[in-house]
Amino acid sequence: MKLNIALLAGDGIGPEVIDQAVKVSDAVAAKFGHEITWKPALTGAAAIDAVGEPYPDETHEICKNSDAVLFGAIGHPRFDNDPSAKVRPEQGLLKMRKALGLFANVRPTFTFPSLLDKSPLKKERIEGTDLVFLRELTGGIYFGEKGRRDDGETAYDNCVYTRAEVQRLAKKGFELAMTRGKKLCCVDKANVLETSRLWRETVQAMEKDYPEVEVSYEFVDAVAMRLVQWPNSYDVLITENLFGDILTDEASVISGSMGLMPSASLGSDIGLFEPIHGSYPQATGLNIANPMATVLSAAMMFENFGLLDEGKAIRTVVNEALNKGIVTEDLADGGTAYGTKEVGDWLAANI
Amino acid sequence: MKLNIALLAGDGIGPEVIDQAVKVSDAVAAKFGHEITWKPALTGAAAIDAVGEPYPDETHEICKNSDAVLFGAIGHPRFDNDPSAKVRPEQGLLKMRKALGLFANVRPTFTFPSLLDKSPLKKERIEGTDLVFLRELTGGIYFGEKGRRDDGETAYDNCVYTRAEVQRLAKKGFELAMTRGKKLCCVDKANVLETSRLWRETVQAMEKDYPEVEVSYEFVDAVAMRLVQWPNSYDVLITENLFGDILTDEASVISGSMGLMPSASLGSDIGLFEPIHGSYPQATGLNIANPMATVLSAAMMFENFGLLDEGKAIRTVVNEALNKGIVTEDLADGGTAYGTKEVGDWLAANI
Ligand SMILES: CC(C)[C@H](C(=O)O)[C@@H](O)C(=O)O
Ligand SMILES: CC(C)[C@H](C(=O)O)[C@@H](O)C(=O)O
Repeated sequence: MKLNIALLAGDGIGPEVIDQAVKVSDAVAAKFGHEITWKPALTGAAAIDAVGEPYPDETHEICKNSDAVLFGAIGHPRFDNDPSAKVRPEQGLLKMRKALGLFANVRPTFTFPSLLDKSPLKKERIEGTDLVFLRELTGGIYFGEKGRRDDGETAYDNCVYTRAEVQRLAKKGFELAMTRGKKLCCVDKANVLETSRLWRETVQAMEKDYPEVEVSYEFVDAVAMRLVQWPNSYDVLITENLFGDILTDEASVISGSMGLMPSASLGSDIGLFEPIHGSYPQATGLNIANPMATVLSAAMMFENFGLLDEGKAIRTVVNEALNKGIVTEDLADGGTAYGTKEVGDWLAANI
Repeated sequence: MKLNIALLAGDGIGPEVIDQAVKVSDAVAAKFGHEITWKPALTGAAAIDAVGEPYPDETHEICKNSDAVLFGAIGHPRFDNDPSAKVRPEQGLLKMRKALGLFANVRPTFTFPSLLDKSPLKKERIEGTDLVFLRELTGGIYFGEKGRRDDGETAYDNCVYTRAEVQRLAKKGFELAMTRGKKLCCVDKANVLETSRLWRETVQAMEKDYPEVEVSYEFVDAVAMRLVQWPNSYDVLITENLFGDILTDEASVISGSMGLMPSASLGSDIGLFEPIHGSYPQATGLNIANPMATVLSAAMMFENFGLLDEGKAIRTVVNEALNKGIVTEDLADGGTAYGTKEVGDWLAANI
C-alpha cells in the first residue's frame, strides 16, 4: 500500500514523540511492504509563530490531500492564562476538526497488567478495564452560536444537534460495539436537555438494526460516578461533544497509563491519530517524554486502513518494551530510564 | 430560636431517612432550647400521584413561609426510561430551585478516617480530602430556551449567564474560602465557551476584594482528572450548573462515603438541605437505608442559621456512631447491621 500521511508535530514534546512514531511506522512499512510518504505541516503555537494562525490554509491543503494525519500535541504556556487571546492554538484544533469533518473522536481506555499499580484506583476496581468512548467532535455547544449581549453583561452559548449528526456518530458506535463486547451506552442528560432527548430517541430508533447489541442509556452525572467505581463495566460509550470532553479525560486517568493512551478522530474520509496527552512544555527537548502513546496512535492509524497485522505488530512490540523495562522515566519506577529516542529506536528495531 | 421547617420527604426511602433527621433535630432543639415546627408537604412522585404535579403550589407556599426546607429524595423507577414523559419528578426539583431562588448548591466531599477503605481510590490518594463545590443552580443550560426546529430534526439548548448571576455565586465562594483553606478554584471551559469567559473575567475582577484568597482557574476536563488523581489538592470550587452536576457526582464517589454526604442549596433567603443520595426505591420500607447523610444535612441547616454548636453536636454524634459501629448494613462490613430507625434512635439519644 502507498500511504501519504500528513505529519503535524505541533508544540512542546510533539516533534520528539512524532519522530519516534515515524520511525516505528517506517519499520512496519518496510516489514509489510508498504510505502509511506510523510508530509510535515505546521500547527499550534508553532504555526502561530511562523504564519500567524494555528491551522494555516497550507496545512489544511496538505491534510486534505493525505490519507491520514498523524498529530503530536499543541499548546504553549504563554497562551495559558489568557483564554480570550485573539489567536490561540486550540482554535486551530477546532477549525481543523470541522474542516476535515472529524466528527467521531475515538478514545480507548485500557489497562496494561504491568502498570495497574500506577492507577489512582484500587487494583480490583481497574483490572480488566477495556472501554472506548466515541465522542461527537464537530457539533454541540462547541460550534453553536456564541456571544454577548446587554453591553457584555450577558453571555450565551448555543448547543445544537441534528438527527443526522447523532445518527452518523451512533452508527460508528453500534459498529464498533459489534466488533467488541456488543454493549453500547448512550450517555446523555435527557432528563434536562432537549438535545439529549434527540440523542436518546435517535439511538433508540437505531436499536432494531443491531439486535445483537445491548444498549443502555445513562445520565452523564451517573457515568461520571460509575467510571470511578466500576470502569470495567463499560464497553462502548457514545456521547456528545462537551460530555465527551469531560468524561474521556476522567476515563484517561483511571487506567494509570495516561502516557500510553492513543486516540483517533474519524470522519467519512480522512482520519487523524494522536496521543491524548498534551504538549508537556517543561519537557521540551529533554528527550524524556514517553513516545508510546504516539506510537500506539500510529497503530490505530494502520488498523483504520484495515491493516490489522501492522497494528498488532506495533502493539506487540510496545508490550514487549513495557515488560522488558525499555521505558521512559515516567514508567521507570526507580529503574533505568531510557530516552524518548532510545525507546523509539528499540521499538523500531524490534518490529 | 423558633424555627419553621418545611419537610419534603419525597419518594422511596425519603420518608424513612427524614424521620430520623427530624428525631435528631428535635433532640438538638431540646438540648439547646430551640423550638422547631415541622411542616410536611408533598413533592416528587408522591406529589404527582396525589395532585398531578411534582412541586404543587401548596408545597411552594409552605416552603416560602418556612425558615428552611429539609428534603429527602425524589424519583421513582416508573419514570426512569421515559425522559420525555410529560410530568416527571425532576421537573419539580428544577421548578422548586427556581421558585425558591436556590442559586448556590453546596456540596462538600470529605472523608471519615474509619471509612477510607470504602473508597475506590487508594488510601494515599483520598486521605485528607476536604473540598466543597459551589454549583450554580438556577441558570445556565438547565434554564435557557430549549426546543426543536426543522420538524423535530434539530434540537437546541441555550446556555445563558449574566454577570450578576456569576457574581452572587462567586461571592459565596470567596466567603466560604475565607472560612476554610482560603483557596478557590474557578472551573470553566474558557478556551471554548463565551459563558465561561464571562465566568472567568467576573471572578478575576473580584479577586482584589479577597486578597487573602488564592484563586486558580482550571478547565472542566482537567478538574475531572485531578478530582480522581489528587482530590485533596482542592479546597473550594465554584462552577456553573451543568459542570457542577457532573463534577459533584464524580467527587461524591471518591470519598467512599457517598451514603454519608449532605448538601445544601442556598439563595438570598431560604435554604434547602438534603442528602446527595437518591430515593433508592428497592430499599423502600425495609428499614435498611442509611439516615446519616440526611442527619448531617440537618447539621448543615443548623449551621446555616448560625447555630454552630448545634451542628457540631450532630457531627460529633454521627462520628461516635461510626466509631462504635452503630451503622446500617451499607457500612456494617459483615458486623451487626442496625436498622434505619435504630440508628436514628441512637443518634437522638446520644445528642
Ligand atoms: C483544547 C480543547 C479545545 C480541546 C477540547 O475541548 O475539545 C481538548 O480539551 C480536547 O479534548 O481535545
Ligand atoms: C435530577 C436532575 C434534574 C438533577 C440535576 O441535574 O440537577 C440531579 O442530577 C441533581 O444533581 O440534583
